[in-house]
Amino acid sequence: MTDTLPERRSRREGGGRDARIAARQAAAHAAGAPFLTRALKPFEVLDEEGLTLIEHNADTILEEVGIIFRGDPDALRMLKDAGADVEGELVKFPRGMCRQIVQASAPRIYTQHARNPERDVQIGDPYTVLAPNYGSPFVRDLDNGRRYGTLEDFRNFVKLAYMTPHLHHSGGTVCEPVDVPVNKRHLDMVYAHIRWSDKPFMGSVTHPDRARDSVELARIAFSDRGPDFLDSHTVITSLINANSPLVWDATMLGAARVYAEANQATLITPFILAGAMSPVTVAGTAAQTLAEALAGMAFVQLVRPGAPVILGSFASSISMQSGAPTFGTPEPALVLYVMAALARRLGVPFRSGGNLCAAKTADAQAAYESAATFQPTILAGVNFVLHAAGWLEGGLSIGYEKFILDLDQCGMAGVFVGGVDLSENGQALDAIREVGPGKHFLGCAHTQANFQTAFYRSPLADNNSVEQWEAEGAKDMIQRANALWKKQLAEYEAPPLDAAVDEALNDYMNRRKASFPDSNI
Amino acid sequence: MTDTLPERRSRREGGGRDARIAARQAAAHAAGAPFLTRALKPFEVLDEEGLTLIEHNADTILEEVGIIFRGDPDALRMLKDAGADVEGELVKFPRGMCRQIVQASAPRIYTQHARNPERDVQIGDPYTVLAPNYGSPFVRDLDNGRRYGTLEDFRNFVKLAYMTPHLHHSGGTVCEPVDVPVNKRHLDMVYAHIRWSDKPFMGSVTHPDRARDSVELARIAFSDRGPDFLDSHTVITSLINANSPLVWDATMLGAARVYAEANQATLITPFILAGAMSPVTVAGTAAQTLAEALAGMAFVQLVRPGAPVILGSFASSISMQSGAPTFGTPEPALVLYVMAALARRLGVPFRSGGNLCAAKTADAQAAYESAATFQPTILAGVNFVLHAAGWLEGGLSIGYEKFILDLDQCGMAGVFVGGVDLSENGQALDAIREVGPGKHFLGCAHTQANFQTAFYRSPLADNNSVEQWEAEGAKDMIQRANALWKKQLAEYEAPPLDAAVDEALNDYMNRRKASFPDSNI
Repeated sequence: MTDTLPERRSRREGGGRDARIAARQAAAHAAGAPFLTRALKPFEVLDEEGLTLIEHNADTILEEVGIIFRGDPDALRMLKDAGADVEGELVKFPRGMCRQIVQASAPRIYTQHARNPERDVQIGDPYTVLAPNYGSPFVRDLDNGRRYGTLEDFRNFVKLAYMTPHLHHSGGTVCEPVDVPVNKRHLDMVYAHIRWSDKPFMGSVTHPDRARDSVELARIAFSDRGPDFLDSHTVITSLINANSPLVWDATMLGAARVYAEANQATLITPFILAGAMSPVTVAGTAAQTLAEALAGMAFVQLVRPGAPVILGSFASSISMQSGAPTFGTPEPALVLYVMAALARRLGVPFRSGGNLCAAKTADAQAAYESAATFQPTILAGVNFVLHAAGWLEGGLSIGYEKFILDLDQCGMAGVFVGGVDLSENGQALDAIREVGPGKHFLGCAHTQANFQTAFYRSPLADNNSVEQWEAEGAKDMIQRANALWKKQLAEYEAPPLDAAVDEALNDYMNRRKASFPDSNI
Repeated sequence: MTDTLPERRSRREGGGRDARIAARQAAAHAAGAPFLTRALKPFEVLDEEGLTLIEHNADTILEEVGIIFRGDPDALRMLKDAGADVEGELVKFPRGMCRQIVQASAPRIYTQHARNPERDVQIGDPYTVLAPNYGSPFVRDLDNGRRYGTLEDFRNFVKLAYMTPHLHHSGGTVCEPVDVPVNKRHLDMVYAHIRWSDKPFMGSVTHPDRARDSVELARIAFSDRGPDFLDSHTVITSLINANSPLVWDATMLGAARVYAEANQATLITPFILAGAMSPVTVAGTAAQTLAEALAGMAFVQLVRPGAPVILGSFASSISMQSGAPTFGTPEPALVLYVMAALARRLGVPFRSGGNLCAAKTADAQAAYESAATFQPTILAGVNFVLHAAGWLEGGLSIGYEKFILDLDQCGMAGVFVGGVDLSENGQALDAIREVGPGKHFLGCAHTQANFQTAFYRSPLADNNSVEQWEAEGAKDMIQRANALWKKQLAEYEAPPLDAAVDEALNDYMNRRKASFPDSNI
């Protein structure tokens, strides 16, 4: 016996039967886990000293430059009472004030409940929740090209997100349903998430009233859990963007207040195209992002201490020639890694990343750029990932084919974060002993026992010979994805929804829609 | 003064002038550094205990299962004399023997000299050297599709690799020049690297005689540095592949011996498609790879202690349905990270990764898969990267457009590994003070000072509006790459080569070619 190191024995899991059980468990995890559980430590690009420096600079920005809280006298009063220095709408924070407020009450991790309890997600370490694209007015598919999004497109993406095991969240404004008036479409969107999916979802943020509607629809959807369920349970996570640099506006503050008061979660996210909305450097962009996020999160904690709040960072770069947003460049990847580390130090969940690109179609540019954001997303240990599938054209479009392509990447991430299996089955010494030099492993006992789950299987990659690929029409990946999303939608079956709840949701929606005229503001 | 933490002051670099100098230096580095210098710590997927376990298992394989050294009685004698247990061609190694031999004499890092001393590369930590595709019999471009490679293609890729700042090495068999007989094409290939580039290159390994020819051509190329230059300086790094599982054959051993005797470097690389040539698991594949590499590296050190040797790992997976090689899956990425850590622990340079894919054309599949190998390549801290540009179709083809696309990714990696600039200019607090809340950074002094080098500029990404993109023909990335490689080749100018040296190279080549008949074996 030479393979009896203490560490090996302690990991021993028995023979072939255990191997098969482990394999089945791994398969079940990969196929249907409600969120990713990361076994790997995050990648770090700065040491303690560097991170401290950026935190120090964020405090300098908060203290010396300040943040404008625009059009929200209540917010100004609240911040002043908490110790901030308020001059007009400009708020300056004594060093450490925001951090102290956030750390005093913001949870490190929270559960966002889903209509189906098996879909509840944990938002915080060591978990990663993947959610689809958000906010695109346009939609693209291979058959019809680019066009304005409709409610039908919206429902389609909700259905596709529901069907895939690789997204854990239904998202929010997956695309803009432009065929519905701006001031009413939030009702249709929230209803669609509830009706056509049972995964957790996001609410509207374009007006405080629309946030209120989102909360009320959620109350109805969760009414079977008791009348006060929402007051003690989070069922909505919504996206609150800063007006960078250094401005929070009344719309976003108002929506954040509605959600916080209802104990619902907010992603407090400086949305930054570095070079236009922040300095052209990584360290400068990170310090500004942290300052803006700290101010926003402190505000939320003042509204309701303990309301779940996520530090968000959306940072990309611009072309210095044209001013156009660029994606997949190395600098935003560095910002992402820095911000993830800063969120961990602060002790709040972190949102960033996704499969972002400037490409118009799902070509090589789309894939390279998306991977250049998504791999850092996974390796940094992001907890909540918006735009994990579908994003094209700097967010202006969501693509059906791109959506399907990105899901494949999400599936691979799920395997990767599980890390290396060091069980006896994982070590596979018996396989090497059985096969020996100069033979092959294709039919050996270990390979047969692990056949089902050995490697991630892409539904899209073509690994065949060039001759076979040509015989099948020499299709590129976009064409294969086109067939796949249509097949998915054709096979869609809605999750169950209590008829009385559905009626109540429709009643609320119809009553609200009838109570004010259509408007596109 | 609030921004005077001790750590800030120690990093202070002065004002705008220093910023501009730093920016220029960064630009120079990005544009023309002879290799990448990594400022980031490698990403780790296993802890000390896990890595020790895999080392232990590699020793178990070497001790209990053994390695076949096929058709090379000299090698068997040498290994027996060193303490191995030799039965026929099967060699079993006492625990720790190979490691001890390697660690006793193999260098942690070495210089591979280039014809142009400014192109010398350091192979070892903390450096990364990027080299092009290797070994493809086929070539693909958008105009002519897929066809056998020719010597003209070979020269074209040498020229493209010479022109780009993002590859540091000219590589070896960039493609197979199928129009030249197999037993003579090595002469044309080595000559082409010397004649059409001044970057470091690789030699032939398909027969010991061809390795000898490679060394002799190199001797002539470096004859201006003195008659014995090669005996004390490494100018060739060559690729020695194992016949996995657990076999080293006479051809590769013979070539490795030639190079080691001449003090030239070898990449000792188990080439593994897991599931066929190793177990289907990450830990099993890593242990087998380490065992095979240790045996090969020990052999090289016995031939000539101190000859540079690199631990290589080429590991991908297969489709369990079809047996076809697959690329870009998560399991090989985990193997890569594990092997990089094992090489660091052993104390030798590490070769792995590249922009690998199974895709037939440079579509989204090619890009996603390539990125899924290349990002781990960079984050794991690989020291020598073969296949960094051009690889298609599991290595069967090299693509002109794919080559250009991959160069863009190599360029971005060069920026990424530099990490976060924490100088005063990098912190950019003055920019934030200057701009303040609600304004933009486009024209501020800091942005203007850093304009040239602020963000990586892709020559291929289209970041324009969809309207402008359509007006320009709605080209995808492959089409843009097609225009770029043609432009590059049209602008190519050969580096200087002494006429007498050139004549001597041609004399040697012609004499050798005339000395034996053509053969395609």
